[in-house]
Amino acid sequence: MIDNLPKGFQAGAAGAGFKKPGRDDLGLIISDRPAVLAGMFTQNAFCAAPVLVCRDILHKYGKARAVLANSGQANACTGEEGMANCRATQRMVAESTGLMPDEVLPISTGVIGAQLKMDLFARAMPSLIESLGTRDAEGFTRAFMTTDAFPKFATREIELNQGMTRLTIMAKGAGMICPNMATMLCVVLTDAQVSCGSWQDMFAHAVAKTFNRVSVDGDTSTNDTILGLANGASGVIANQDNDLSALEKALTETLGTVAHMLVMDGEGASKVMHIFVRGAASDNDARMAARSVGDSQLVKTAIYGGDANWGRIVTAVGYSGASFDPAEVCLTLCGIERFHKGRPVNDDKEDDLAELLKARDVKVEILLGSGPGSYDYQASDLGHEYVSLNADYRS
Amino acid sequence: MIDNLPKGFQAGAAGAGFKKPGRDDLGLIISDRPAVLAGMFTQNAFCAAPVLVCRDILHKYGKARAVLANSGQANACTGEEGMANCRATQRMVAESTGLMPDEVLPISTGVIGAQLKMDLFARAMPSLIESLGTRDAEGFTRAFMTTDAFPKFATREIELNQGMTRLTIMAKGAGMICPNMATMLCVVLTDAQVSCGSWQDMFAHAVAKTFNRVSVDGDTSTNDTILGLANGASGVIANQDNDLSALEKALTETLGTVAHMLVMDGEGASKVMHIFVRGAASDNDARMAARSVGDSQLVKTAIYGGDANWGRIVTAVGYSGASFDPAEVCLTLCGIERFHKGRPVNDDKEDDLAELLKARDVKVEILLGSGPGSYDYQASDLGHEYVSLNADYRS
Repeated sequence: MIDNLPKGFQAGAAGAGFKKPGRDDLGLIISDRPAVLAGMFTQNAFCAAPVLVCRDILHKYGKARAVLANSGQANACTGEEGMANCRATQRMVAESTGLMPDEVLPISTGVIGAQLKMDLFARAMPSLIESLGTRDAEGFTRAFMTTDAFPKFATREIELNQGMTRLTIMAKGAGMICPNMATMLCVVLTDAQVSCGSWQDMFAHAVAKTFNRVSVDGDTSTNDTILGLANGASGVIANQDNDLSALEKALTETLGTVAHMLVMDGEGASKVMHIFVRGAASDNDARMAARSVGDSQLVKTAIYGGDANWGRIVTAVGYSGASFDPAEVCLTLCGIERFHKGRPVNDDKEDDLAELLKARDVKVEILLGSGPGSYDYQASDLGHEYVSLNADYRS
Repeated sequence: MIDNLPKGFQAGAAGAGFKKPGRDDLGLIISDRPAVLAGMFTQNAFCAAPVLVCRDILHKYGKARAVLANSGQANACTGEEGMANCRATQRMVAESTGLMPDEVLPISTGVIGAQLKMDLFARAMPSLIESLGTRDAEGFTRAFMTTDAFPKFATREIELNQGMTRLTIMAKGAGMICPNMATMLCVVLTDAQVSCGSWQDMFAHAVAKTFNRVSVDGDTSTNDTILGLANGASGVIANQDNDLSALEKALTETLGTVAHMLVMDGEGASKVMHIFVRGAASDNDARMAARSVGDSQLVKTAIYGGDANWGRIVTAVGYSGASFDPAEVCLTLCGIERFHKGRPVNDDKEDDLAELLKARDVKVEILLGSGPGSYDYQASDLGHEYVSLNADYRS
């Protein structure tokens, strides 16, 4: 165990050459005992083969021992051949480690529609197994980066009634990020001992408040997977109410940290909009307004350019489908009110605002009325780097 | 009358200096007799003042004599002051021409949230009135261009039972283009005589098949307006079934021509995707799939880059919300099938496809199953020019 992984987990990585030589693109995590499993998956109708396999394992067994991650090929939209390949990679790990194939959770990211390169998998397997114990959280994360500019991981200790436990989160994702977890892979490890039901419940709550509230481009991928493995290796049982609350709080905070990293690394992103909608008729109306603003190409490009073109924000609220009275709407940008109850605010603060818009984090506050509904949302801007990265991703 | 305007209509334009000096930014069309009016307007909850005024005139009177168009300021999100200014511009035209204020239809485009520059309106009015009869369809269109790279207009003769009539369409729009008519202004003129009900009906049908099926950025603006004025100055009455069919057919075809110009001039667009969805459970399922593909940032950037990354198209279908069986879906790109009943097509046509993707018009055919639903949709790509144009639009 390397010190930023929870007890009982080992990580390894290898360079299989799936896309570019000379970098790790295959990672493995193994727990020394069965871990209670939680999982959430993409809402896309085209689920990648590894998503189908992980979902199956979650429903059938509710526990697992290992995670096998690759970049380069997403193994999505690959038909029966893709499913057979996915199962074969489980068997490769099982044969080398003595695990059962269905104790191995496969996760894949990369080009959609491309088949896994099975010969490269087979050739890399011995060095992957040999590397177990040589990688920490960062080392595993680097093995499944694609267009990510930096590895995303976070780790913390959590003190429970019976003693200290650790939580470590490792994620990838930069493009196709959208609520409901677009191309985003995330592995959460803890050595706390927690029941299957409690673990899945706190997972669902934490993801709803974090990963499902960030957006880069509004595209929901075929491969999104978030897996949680709680192996209990600390010997600390989380079964009292305050233990479960402490664990859920730590999980939510740490997932929030990693979610912010995803938006910050939104492909080519230079800025993050923090959108706060208040006073809506319902939380759902607030959500519609927030997502419409955060996903608007015109708002994203204005924020990229540092242009205080607040009319585009109001316009995006206007076509969001949220229910509100236009005469009640107020908009505050970077702390400066620009639109008050349906009218523009005339003042001499344009220069101040232009200065504030140079910041990396831009606060957008929208008051829709006097209702109880609210929603927070983080979205990246849209600039030249996004276009450059995505216009020729495959080559 | 200049020869590409229908009989009884005169156009003029002036440079008021609303944004940049030295170009026409104020246009006027006057009919020598009352014209039957049709109109369709933005679905945005924040309607610009001129939209509210035009809608009011349509509902109260169903006819009008003039169209006053300006660029520079959209007069949207401008509160009561914006409404008072809009009414004042109607009065200025009325005082100079002897019309009633509510015979003048105002349309505005430009920065949202900025008030009209009333002093510049007043100063330009005499030269605007004096210019009547000196501009043709192109001249009027140029007066309300914003980021448009070229003026969009089309004109044609239509032979009806009683004789020849003319149809002329003048439009602006490049950004904020989205179904339900985002920042798009369009004026349709004809000298045919047609009843109010027939004219509005054929309008609604034609717009649904044309302007409501094009997209640049998915942003629906506050100002979209399409106005139709039929003044009957040809003396030709369109009242028989085959007359009405001929007029509707010509209107649909000509609006289609202009709609294609809008997408082609999508801000910074270099290519147009022509998306055809077939075999859907319903037309609405087909529509959802087509819009999801055409509005996807990842698909748009791939098309811009000429990258045959068809997995992104399938992915966008997958998260569209349309109902279908993933195992039935087929995708053909530029005539080459890439995805057949849920599986990738393996062949050696990648190089052919790369060559075909260099074309300006890119055909995307999606078969969702064996249902009766279908939908066509045109969408622009997303490139560096879009970002450059929109990152600092106001300055």
